[in-house]
Amino acid sequence: MKINVGILGATGNVGQRFIQMLENHPMFELTALGASQRSAGKTYEDACYWYQTEAIPENIAKKVVVPTEANHPEFENVDIVFSALPANLAKTIEPEFAKAGKLVFSNASAMRMEADVPLIITEVNHEHFKMLETQRDNRGYDGGIITNPNCSTICSSITLKPIMDKFGLDLVNITTMQAISGAGYDGVPGMAILDNMIPYIGGEEEKMQTENLKILGNVENGHFIDGNFKIGVSCNRVPVIDGHTESVFVKTTEEAETEEIIKAMDEFDPLKDFNLPSYAKPIVLRSENDRPQPRLDRNTGNGMSIVVGRVRKDPIFTTKYTALEHNTIRGAAGASVLNAELYVKKYL
Amino acid sequence: MKINVGILGATGNVGQRFIQMLENHPMFELTALGASQRSAGKTYEDACYWYQTEAIPENIAKKVVVPTEANHPEFENVDIVFSALPANLAKTIEPEFAKAGKLVFSNASAMRMEADVPLIITEVNHEHFKMLETQRDNRGYDGGIITNPNCSTICSSITLKPIMDKFGLDLVNITTMQAISGAGYDGVPGMAILDNMIPYIGGEEEKMQTENLKILGNVENGHFIDGNFKIGVSCNRVPVIDGHTESVFVKTTEEAETEEIIKAMDEFDPLKDFNLPSYAKPIVLRSENDRPQPRLDRNTGNGMSIVVGRVRKDPIFTTKYTALEHNTIRGAAGASVLNAELYVKKYL
Amino acid sequence: MKINVGILGATGNVGQRFIQMLENHPMFELTALGASQRSAGKTYEDACYWYQTEAIPENIAKKVVVPTEANHPEFENVDIVFSALPANLAKTIEPEFAKAGKLVFSNASAMRMEADVPLIITEVNHEHFKMLETQRDNRGYDGGIITNPNCSTICSSITLKPIMDKFGLDLVNITTMQAISGAGYDGVPGMAILDNMIPYIGGEEEKMQTENLKILGNVENGHFIDGNFKIGVSCNRVPVIDGHTESVFVKTTEEAETEEIIKAMDEFDPLKDFNLPSYAKPIVLRSENDRPQPRLDRNTGNGMSIVVGRVRKDPIFTTKYTALEHNTIRGAAGASVLNAELYVKKYL
Amino acid sequence: MKINVGILGATGNVGQRFIQMLENHPMFELTALGASQRSAGKTYEDACYWYQTEAIPENIAKKVVVPTEANHPEFENVDIVFSALPANLAKTIEPEFAKAGKLVFSNASAMRMEADVPLIITEVNHEHFKMLETQRDNRGYDGGIITNPNCSTICSSITLKPIMDKFGLDLVNITTMQAISGAGYDGVPGMAILDNMIPYIGGEEEKMQTENLKILGNVENGHFIDGNFKIGVSCNRVPVIDGHTESVFVKTTEEAETEEIIKAMDEFDPLKDFNLPSYAKPIVLRSENDRPQPRLDRNTGNGMSIVVGRVRKDPIFTTKYTALEHNTIRGAAGASVLNAELYVKKYL
Repeated sequence: MKINVGILGATGNVGQRFIQMLENHPMFELTALGASQRSAGKTYEDACYWYQTEAIPENIAKKVVVPTEANHPEFENVDIVFSALPANLAKTIEPEFAKAGKLVFSNASAMRMEADVPLIITEVNHEHFKMLETQRDNRGYDGGIITNPNCSTICSSITLKPIMDKFGLDLVNITTMQAISGAGYDGVPGMAILDNMIPYIGGEEEKMQTENLKILGNVENGHFIDGNFKIGVSCNRVPVIDGHTESVFVKTTEEAETEEIIKAMDEFDPLKDFNLPSYAKPIVLRSENDRPQPRLDRNTGNGMSIVVGRVRKDPIFTTKYTALEHNTIRGAAGASVLNAELYVKKYL
Repeated sequence: MKINVGILGATGNVGQRFIQMLENHPMFELTALGASQRSAGKTYEDACYWYQTEAIPENIAKKVVVPTEANHPEFENVDIVFSALPANLAKTIEPEFAKAGKLVFSNASAMRMEADVPLIITEVNHEHFKMLETQRDNRGYDGGIITNPNCSTICSSITLKPIMDKFGLDLVNITTMQAISGAGYDGVPGMAILDNMIPYIGGEEEKMQTENLKILGNVENGHFIDGNFKIGVSCNRVPVIDGHTESVFVKTTEEAETEEIIKAMDEFDPLKDFNLPSYAKPIVLRSENDRPQPRLDRNTGNGMSIVVGRVRKDPIFTTKYTALEHNTIRGAAGASVLNAELYVKKYL
Repeated sequence: MKINVGILGATGNVGQRFIQMLENHPMFELTALGASQRSAGKTYEDACYWYQTEAIPENIAKKVVVPTEANHPEFENVDIVFSALPANLAKTIEPEFAKAGKLVFSNASAMRMEADVPLIITEVNHEHFKMLETQRDNRGYDGGIITNPNCSTICSSITLKPIMDKFGLDLVNITTMQAISGAGYDGVPGMAILDNMIPYIGGEEEKMQTENLKILGNVENGHFIDGNFKIGVSCNRVPVIDGHTESVFVKTTEEAETEEIIKAMDEFDPLKDFNLPSYAKPIVLRSENDRPQPRLDRNTGNGMSIVVGRVRKDPIFTTKYTALEHNTIRGAAGASVLNAELYVKKYL
Repeated sequence: MKINVGILGATGNVGQRFIQMLENHPMFELTALGASQRSAGKTYEDACYWYQTEAIPENIAKKVVVPTEANHPEFENVDIVFSALPANLAKTIEPEFAKAGKLVFSNASAMRMEADVPLIITEVNHEHFKMLETQRDNRGYDGGIITNPNCSTICSSITLKPIMDKFGLDLVNITTMQAISGAGYDGVPGMAILDNMIPYIGGEEEKMQTENLKILGNVENGHFIDGNFKIGVSCNRVPVIDGHTESVFVKTTEEAETEEIIKAMDEFDPLKDFNLPSYAKPIVLRSENDRPQPRLDRNTGNGMSIVVGRVRKDPIFTTKYTALEHNTIRGAAGASVLNAELYVKKYL
């Protein structure tokens, strides 16, 4: 028996990726497409400008879009909603769905840093799901809100986790080179990015600095305790369609040789026994000098693997490496769907 | 009276920039164009594929290219040669010109780290010119070889210098996002860089790590003493024609507020009284969030200024900022020409 | 004595180019910057996102923007306004300025095809200025509206004119490959154009087909008579910042050898004796196989020359060639300014 | 029972596509990888720089590359070879394989226009296979050489064929906008194509003009008779990775309404009953204004369909439209493989 699911914000960039992730999904049946009042009432193919390289799934193309209202009949038989809402709308709409008994797996930033909202990367900190208890107590939800982090946070947290577990983290320094799809279809004008790059993404550095600490921290007595390391970040936009690249520098608490760090990342595979449909090996290591590259490597593991290369010594830090993530799959829609898959299999 | 000058490697990317820098130069008269045997004997316009956005200077287009031989008659009346040779050729050809009494201002990497070869950024360490004495003693040159650093080194050293002078340097961490022109016209295939970036530039990280230490160090008793700080680097290629961008993180020896660091960089203008033809304010600061950007800012100061923005606090380092350099002007041909201009005005 | 001029729509893409064209202009003094109510009252540098590769002229940066109202005091002493308004606003605002006695040199499409509005490319059909008489009679203007064509029309008309004059035109077929700056700064998302092209530009084919006929036609007894040839067009957007490229095929009425056509284009220089400040040789011919190219050739003649290459025989048409135009200079702001320059020198 | 096949020129751009097309192929077993002496003896993964977005098929990665010699043991049990050789090598090597009894399905241009070599697009002119008889008689081959056309020819011929069959062809005019992968991995430098396009591809216009006439012509009494229409072409390179776009203008012999032309193209599906593994609907029509676009549509039909849009009237020609082809699949490797599939099913 499949679980009925819906999407909030189904017509945008991440919404389209949710639709692709949920096509022929063995656990979930996509039955409700929520979007703005402007789109509601239209068929999906009329409501959205579809710009993926595969066609709209046929059963979705003709489906009518409904408003993102928790009490809309279309959402009645839905148990889980995936949210690709903009932050300002997520802030009011997601709690309404949680009150109405839905589990909201949200890619929006609005609720991520709330004191009772779990911020989860499935492979890294799924134990934080237990904060749902506190959230329900605090807020009187029958359902609940589970967020996943910002795209560029996911890329770093997944690679830092096995290093932290084996050698401890002291200092983390990251410079990102992020794809334009992260800003949405209209987010970056062609004039702004052809033969150019932009050394700024609003709010991104703050998100990476706070989210990584929350994710790599602990839950104790119903409270989040930040990870015990320092992290500084510089974010840049580059002319790449999909695929965030990060230059990561890490100082570990204990000594660690390059080969040991590679081994720790390579062996990191914590959920391989759960048979999650969207799961892929979280970290795929490349030994070539000039990899990972976004155009060539972003689809590794159906876009769900972080590809790591150039692990090497640094004069200041213990190690440095390059990590690549498909930002709208692993870094957005895929992260939410994988959270839901594990939650259903292990926690429901 | 102008000084006659020549170019070694006149047909390539940097050679073309030398020609542009030397057009109508008030101190130098370009009288000799040296290139490979394949080009020698042809007119310049026939010998080279000119791909600058301004036309070949008229007096150069019809000039005949000669081989890069120190005893070729065309070089007889030349006092200074600018070298844009590839490293392997520079290693043997530049010494021949130095023996023949020429001052070789070289953009090649071959001789930069030699124990008696000055590696100079005019505004940063022109006192190192005095190592020419040692070089002449050691090698029996009548002329001498003066190198300028790798393009990405120049960008970092110029911005680090005023910080070092005011607050001392402890740790420097840099991630570069470099333009494709740095690899030469054929260096990066379109297939490799469209919708893509490459997290590797052969030898670049090593150059930046060693060259910055030499430049920001001292000369004592005929020896170079490295700067007393640590530096780690990660280098990337991005789809930008011209303009290297660097995310720089600096830990100073003494405390420094962001405003003080901005002020130090803004006031850095050590050679303003020399009236050097190619000189521009070395550091131009931008206050906008999203600058510098290579397409918009690379031509600042005729391509000779480093443009700095986003100076701000960092959780680990004292400060972080973004620096942009026109890599084939400020980072290559312009660096050599400015070195020659100051040498002639102050040291000859 | 300079003539005071203003700009309508000063903050957008073409508005910025007008400002650059009018900087230090020997005939015109830019004294009024008109823009939307949202911008009015701000300094120019605060009102606009300036994205040219040269800085805002200093005297303009601090100038206060005013609303585009014909009776605003700032426009009182202005004799000429250059319009970069969007078509819908141009339709009502430009006539108000014409009524108020101003000569409106407009780059907007709104009025181009009106039966009494001249549509002028200075070098091609300045005799059409005489239609201003009819316009004033019809509309009771003290001033008048003079339009210039769509960017891609200008590129074609200039190259067709000398061929038409020498050999007559029968059939013209054009496929364009147009730069993204033609759509305005936000007009083409990066996601839409990286590793991509778009085979459609709304209204562009119709404009090229009607405008070329009007421009290359005659004025007889106060009426426009279309040129006596057929023209069919296909328009495409390609990932180029500035510079429209056109593959043009022409069947002439009389026989013409390739060399004769090249000669006709090369000798076309009708206004060389007027000393117009923005004038450059209208057509610059390149003999290399692989030219013109937008990045290398768009700035030819300060962006005012059409660069033509690959003139050759075709199995169906008499000749085919490639033409390149800097679309926001020659194809927009420069076209208006050149019209004004000739009007002042010859017709005022 | 599968037929053993080999590849000549297995390491290059088209060679890599052949490997992808032949992975898990139901009719063919890839058993021999031929490449230059430089590659021979290495494993495939060591011999080639693989730059496809999917990984090398596992059974191929470790396979040893052999020299392209017809008598090499590795080719002994091979019946069919697919050639991705450069033209100059194809000229001598392909005949040797044909003499040795192999059927050579070649993507190389060397033999295409020979008087006894069929130049075949499977869906368009497979009757030309009968010229193999003549070829064998002339040349004493036991095998034979079957070529497929240049990539940009295939795109045009497939769309012209149904129009020719229904309405007759009189005049064809095409301007191409071709992807950089057509020139091979190193064929177009990044410096040449970023923010740029190139109005020239060596030999391409001639190929399109001659090949289309041969393909759309007939075979009579052992001779090729050219199609009875005129065709003129202009070829351009644009910054797109994969996907050639063509603006096509057609004058038909008989009158034809736009809707009739659309219908003819849409119904064109001549080989649908053969169950060829690589076959897809040859022409897929899009009704949106702004399609086809290379990044979004090139993978239609696994890259084997031509996507056509914007079919509309033209003032000179009967119709004009935009056609898109995946140039390294439909336009190269896929064309050869499809030829082989039909030959085996129908002619062997």
